[in-house]
Amino acid sequence: MKKEYLKQVRDSKPIVHSITNYVTVNDCANILLACGASPIMADAKEEVEEITSICDALYLNIGTPSFACKESMLLAGRKANALGHPIVLDPVGVGASSLRTEIANTLIEELSIDVIRGNISEIKALAMGSHSVQGVDAAVADTVTKDNLEEMITFIKMFAKKTKAIIIVTGAIDIVTDSEKTYVIENGHPMMSSVTGTGCMLSALVGAYISANKHNMLEAAALAVSSMGLCGEIAYQRLSLLDGNASYRNYIIDAMARLDDEQLLRGLKCGVYG
Amino acid sequence: MKKEYLKQVRDSKPIVHSITNYVTVNDCANILLACGASPIMADAKEEVEEITSICDALYLNIGTPSFACKESMLLAGRKANALGHPIVLDPVGVGASSLRTEIANTLIEELSIDVIRGNISEIKALAMGSHSVQGVDAAVADTVTKDNLEEMITFIKMFAKKTKAIIIVTGAIDIVTDSEKTYVIENGHPMMSSVTGTGCMLSALVGAYISANKHNMLEAAALAVSSMGLCGEIAYQRLSLLDGNASYRNYIIDAMARLDDEQLLRGLKCGVYG
Amino acid sequence: MKKEYLKQVRDSKPIVHSITNYVTVNDCANILLACGASPIMADAKEEVEEITSICDALYLNIGTPSFACKESMLLAGRKANALGHPIVLDPVGVGASSLRTEIANTLIEELSIDVIRGNISEIKALAMGSHSVQGVDAAVADTVTKDNLEEMITFIKMFAKKTKAIIIVTGAIDIVTDSEKTYVIENGHPMMSSVTGTGCMLSALVGAYISANKHNMLEAAALAVSSMGLCGEIAYQRLSLLDGNASYRNYIIDAMARLDDEQLLRGLKCGVYG
Repeated sequence: MKKEYLKQVRDSKPIVHSITNYVTVNDCANILLACGASPIMADAKEEVEEITSICDALYLNIGTPSFACKESMLLAGRKANALGHPIVLDPVGVGASSLRTEIANTLIEELSIDVIRGNISEIKALAMGSHSVQGVDAAVADTVTKDNLEEMITFIKMFAKKTKAIIIVTGAIDIVTDSEKTYVIENGHPMMSSVTGTGCMLSALVGAYISANKHNMLEAAALAVSSMGLCGEIAYQRLSLLDGNASYRNYIIDAMARLDDEQLLRGLKCGVYG
Repeated sequence: MKKEYLKQVRDSKPIVHSITNYVTVNDCANILLACGASPIMADAKEEVEEITSICDALYLNIGTPSFACKESMLLAGRKANALGHPIVLDPVGVGASSLRTEIANTLIEELSIDVIRGNISEIKALAMGSHSVQGVDAAVADTVTKDNLEEMITFIKMFAKKTKAIIIVTGAIDIVTDSEKTYVIENGHPMMSSVTGTGCMLSALVGAYISANKHNMLEAAALAVSSMGLCGEIAYQRLSLLDGNASYRNYIIDAMARLDDEQLLRGLKCGVYG
Repeated sequence: MKKEYLKQVRDSKPIVHSITNYVTVNDCANILLACGASPIMADAKEEVEEITSICDALYLNIGTPSFACKESMLLAGRKANALGHPIVLDPVGVGASSLRTEIANTLIEELSIDVIRGNISEIKALAMGSHSVQGVDAAVADTVTKDNLEEMITFIKMFAKKTKAIIIVTGAIDIVTDSEKTYVIENGHPMMSSVTGTGCMLSALVGAYISANKHNMLEAAALAVSSMGLCGEIAYQRLSLLDGNASYRNYIIDAMARLDDEQLLRGLKCGVYG
């Protein structure tokens, strides 16, 4: 792998326009700053086109959706497409309500999206119209394991082909594919699921990585996923006996602020599949 | 007291649908995760009924109210009632504006609410239409003390009877009553009032505890209150000379993530009144 | 300088009504609590006038603007003016979109604003209609340096005269002026720009300081700026090799909670210019 994807982020300082949920928006802003990018959050339909014009990437997250945000996402998305800015979509909880399903499907149909990141339940809901989504966490029956890995990858590659997007499915094992080439990533720690917004933060990070590394967005996306997982590992090492998920959240962002490519490549648990 | 209320939360992992303010929403999500529950925040009227249907409890908090949120709260509340999901209402700042008063009163009239939690000023504003509320903190004249405890309990029991809800009044001394039985709780630390959202977090927590312990919601509510107070005590012990309210917030959530029933029962300062 | 501006905040506990963005709102609330003030966040047009009436200062921040918030800001602002409550405006990202520019200009025209705080790009955008704003951070070409300090001060004083407001421009060097008297402040640390919301937090803080020290709002504003910068210095000293911007954010707020006037005056890097 090329060695300097993170350095590229820090050197080029991409501005990531984020239209995201109000639950984890602060963490998304701070992790963007931690990786060297610059966040701007703006969701009013009157300004999203102008805002996205002065940015380098667009991050759309439907964690707390409304019809107003759908309109803003479409306006910003069309402008980003026109300007050639990469777009990342995080379809949080898609399948859990028809509003989420309709917004996510509309965005995928109307926009050219570069990366879609979700847990396996969300990606299944998008790909198959499944309604198995329980809350915003992946249903157990949907978990990617060593046993069903091949089957899962085949399924995700088909969805990547259909959407012409890089698909990232995160869980105990992460899969990143553009339908041609697939990365399987085992960085991360189970405790990350006890922090709200680790998925949202990762999606924001992917926006920073791919916009700073447009020559190879697939590899950039894989490294973003690995770097988030590695920060989860580093942060876990740091926990004292009194620390819980609040300190863990801070340590993850801290680790991202301290990370460099050398440490990232040393800690990488990322392989090309097949 | 039954010994495993918290274990019940961790075992059953209730999903708490939260329609809450954007100030403390992230802390509410993280404390729900800390106690073993799962948060989902969703407030759009187009989806709140569907979302609440896949959840186990509904948490309504009017910290940053609007007419739109009132409609969503009513829709979600009616669905939760139909499905038998417990509802917790946190009437933040009620009495401070007619909007808050009107929303809170409408929710109480139209819905069957299981628990209402507020400071004494807020509960007085609800019960008596008082307009003494100053900001979102309890007015000093309203404080529950050892001297006025009996009078306060009588008043709160009457409100519990009228609303058919468990009433939780928090302050230096906490009162939890269903009009028949009353718990008086002295866990907690004054420094908790220097962290925004400790009340909101507690109300979210109550939602998790009562939905996981439906056989005895009153005791579950009392233990939720005690556990939050105890985490405030544990977190206080942990403060270094450089720590202030930001680290204190994290330590409170951390303490909740580490808490178990044994530690909770050992630290309990909770008695049945009368 | 008078010695007890911070003590005045802690003694009078001003309530700061904040209509602010959902990205950094929690940090604004916690830093207000840290300095001894009390936050109330409320943005619905139905309640902002009532809410502001029970408060001591009004803080308007356009970090995530909408037409709805403009209306609420005008309603609250007119009420605050009628009641003699000081108003602080933080025109986040003004110049980056016509929505932001229009809201900021309308607020400045329609209201009597006591303090406007921004980075130099934002203040230039307000003063000259410049469209040089890149995201929410100051453009490099706009930086205040020792070399252009005199020129910058002249420019900022003119804008203070025109708006009849105290203008605060923050950056590596901070300038606070009411057009007659100018403070130049060198407290702070470059790492503060890696935390989202340090500007928003400072503006909230200014609201607390000036409402508790109405006899000398200019000096109060200068001390608020110095105290935030000093907390950035103290927090930086505290960083371990594993800490990054997330812990740094907490340490800054912690430092504010621990600060007193003696420590503040000892650490002051604040001089009167000219």
